[in-house]
Amino acid sequence: MHQVQPSRLKIALDMMGGDHGPLSTIPAAITAVSENPQLDLILVGDTVAIQQALTDSGISSHPQLQIQHASQQVLMTDKPSVALRTKRDSSMRVALDLVDQQKVQACVSAGNTGALIAMAHYVLKMLNGIERPALISALPTTVGTPVFMLDLGATVNCDSDTLFQFAVMGAVMAEEVESIHQPKVALLNMGEEEIKGSDQIKRTSLLLSECSDINYIGYIEGNDIFSGKADVIVCDGFVGNVALKTCEGVAKLIIKRFEQALKNSMSAHLFGWMIKPLLKSIGTGVNPDHYNGASLIGLRGIVVKSHGNATKEAFLSAIRQAVREVERQVPAKIKDRLEHVLIDKA
Amino acid sequence: MHQVQPSRLKIALDMMGGDHGPLSTIPAAITAVSENPQLDLILVGDTVAIQQALTDSGISSHPQLQIQHASQQVLMTDKPSVALRTKRDSSMRVALDLVDQQKVQACVSAGNTGALIAMAHYVLKMLNGIERPALISALPTTVGTPVFMLDLGATVNCDSDTLFQFAVMGAVMAEEVESIHQPKVALLNMGEEEIKGSDQIKRTSLLLSECSDINYIGYIEGNDIFSGKADVIVCDGFVGNVALKTCEGVAKLIIKRFEQALKNSMSAHLFGWMIKPLLKSIGTGVNPDHYNGASLIGLRGIVVKSHGNATKEAFLSAIRQAVREVERQVPAKIKDRLEHVLIDKA
Repeated sequence: MHQVQPSRLKIALDMMGGDHGPLSTIPAAITAVSENPQLDLILVGDTVAIQQALTDSGISSHPQLQIQHASQQVLMTDKPSVALRTKRDSSMRVALDLVDQQKVQACVSAGNTGALIAMAHYVLKMLNGIERPALISALPTTVGTPVFMLDLGATVNCDSDTLFQFAVMGAVMAEEVESIHQPKVALLNMGEEEIKGSDQIKRTSLLLSECSDINYIGYIEGNDIFSGKADVIVCDGFVGNVALKTCEGVAKLIIKRFEQALKNSMSAHLFGWMIKPLLKSIGTGVNPDHYNGASLIGLRGIVVKSHGNATKEAFLSAIRQAVREVERQVPAKIKDRLEHVLIDKA
Repeated sequence: MHQVQPSRLKIALDMMGGDHGPLSTIPAAITAVSENPQLDLILVGDTVAIQQALTDSGISSHPQLQIQHASQQVLMTDKPSVALRTKRDSSMRVALDLVDQQKVQACVSAGNTGALIAMAHYVLKMLNGIERPALISALPTTVGTPVFMLDLGATVNCDSDTLFQFAVMGAVMAEEVESIHQPKVALLNMGEEEIKGSDQIKRTSLLLSECSDINYIGYIEGNDIFSGKADVIVCDGFVGNVALKTCEGVAKLIIKRFEQALKNSMSAHLFGWMIKPLLKSIGTGVNPDHYNGASLIGLRGIVVKSHGNATKEAFLSAIRQAVREVERQVPAKIKDRLEHVLIDKA
């Protein structure tokens, strides 16, 4: 088995995933290697399509880029369980297999999220002590520093142990990826103190209060996700997914409203040309899902998910995210921290 | 027992609730009666404080305004269960009692949401066939027509029967309050088709598909809440509360970003004075929780909740909402529709 040379970074890219396939993944790969001489990329997918896209980009070959053929492609419409069973030679699956075989240190995909979660879980397995994977992303805040939110959709039903493990993982991500010292960890909850039914959240709160390794600051409400009160926000995958996608919906609504207000404004034609691109960039900025990669954590390997509609910039950002996680050895750090927490609890 | 004269509208107002108390509720009450000669309001709360606020507003008495003394006040920090047990002469409780005694046709409060839900549930009881109350609000969309979303925080744990009942109630609200013909009803869900654990959502989807009285259009994701795809969006109270409050957070973030972008812009001082109020109004517009009243439905009476930080305009809007629900006899319509649906199902 080929082992990764310790001095170099090696990452597999699912070239066929996302709405644009090689059209956005190839330019991102070329920029990624040109800005990082230590980085080698394995471009996984249809050799002909990849080679063609490379040629179209003006290079036929590159010493840091290597193509690995995969005959299949996971479609955005594929059901996760079907993709898992029937697409064993898909670009997504082969990229994950390369992580499992330790031929690369991480993989990046802009493909079908459900399929990626199912395949990654199956191929890479969970870290010891972690029961379920989580999707985590760094969201913007009004104070400048990002907030890490998890789970954004990998695990729908979470018991208190799972949420506790998410809190540990989120804290490690904030420390390692953003160098936030003793990150403030909060649980997403409703405003009312006495809420019925969220027993698992109350139990998680108790677990976190008792854990000296976590800087737990208590509950947080939806209106404070972006206020900078917390560095890490923990919730189950259903709630996190709805919250993140609602952000996208609100951003669109606000931009639409603003455009309408400008239309009705006498001065619209005076400065509309300047405001519109500003609005667009702000809309993109608060759709972190569109911009940053989301990491699938809790697994024995590094998997970064770029948005399905990823542009070159978004896919490049996901590659950089993977590089950072490799350099900081995030899975090993999560494992260490969890062991430490569990020893302290025992 | 005094019965309401059929030709007139009579509504009780909790004057002491909300952050501003009579300072915002009195001006709203005065405007409400001046714009609607059929409307009588019972101002519930501390007589001295109410009388003082009336005098400060330039009127000592008004034929459509009547004061009803209540010696207690539910504080925003009161736990719902404690308020329910110990604040039986609070302005909130007395206003609800007036609805129960049919001395008024509705009540409006800007007070502690949890306490209002607990008290309203206890005092008014559920309509036959409805198991749990729901908070519903009309949210703005990019296409202009509003979308009714429920539950926004009254019932945290919802089984499929409860969610189904919410769908029926939401459809009635959209028809009666906004005159939307055969409103399109959707269930809030994650993107993935095969999601684990949301069995109650799948079961609800099946129940709705089989119900010919509901124009059920299937699942909707968070990014489509404001797109106008649906007229009614159904979810459990935890998810709805997080989604609504997340909107508030995103709106703040976008406005902050915009302000920062303006600051860095050369032309900021040229048109910043014009943009800022626009931004503020847009921010308010997408915080419907701040602007419109949310109705607590499923009960044997009409209860409208205004935001805790309600301004005069917001409280006035909540009074108008209560008037509309009285005129359209929303609880009776919900009861009728539910009976119809259940007969069809049987």
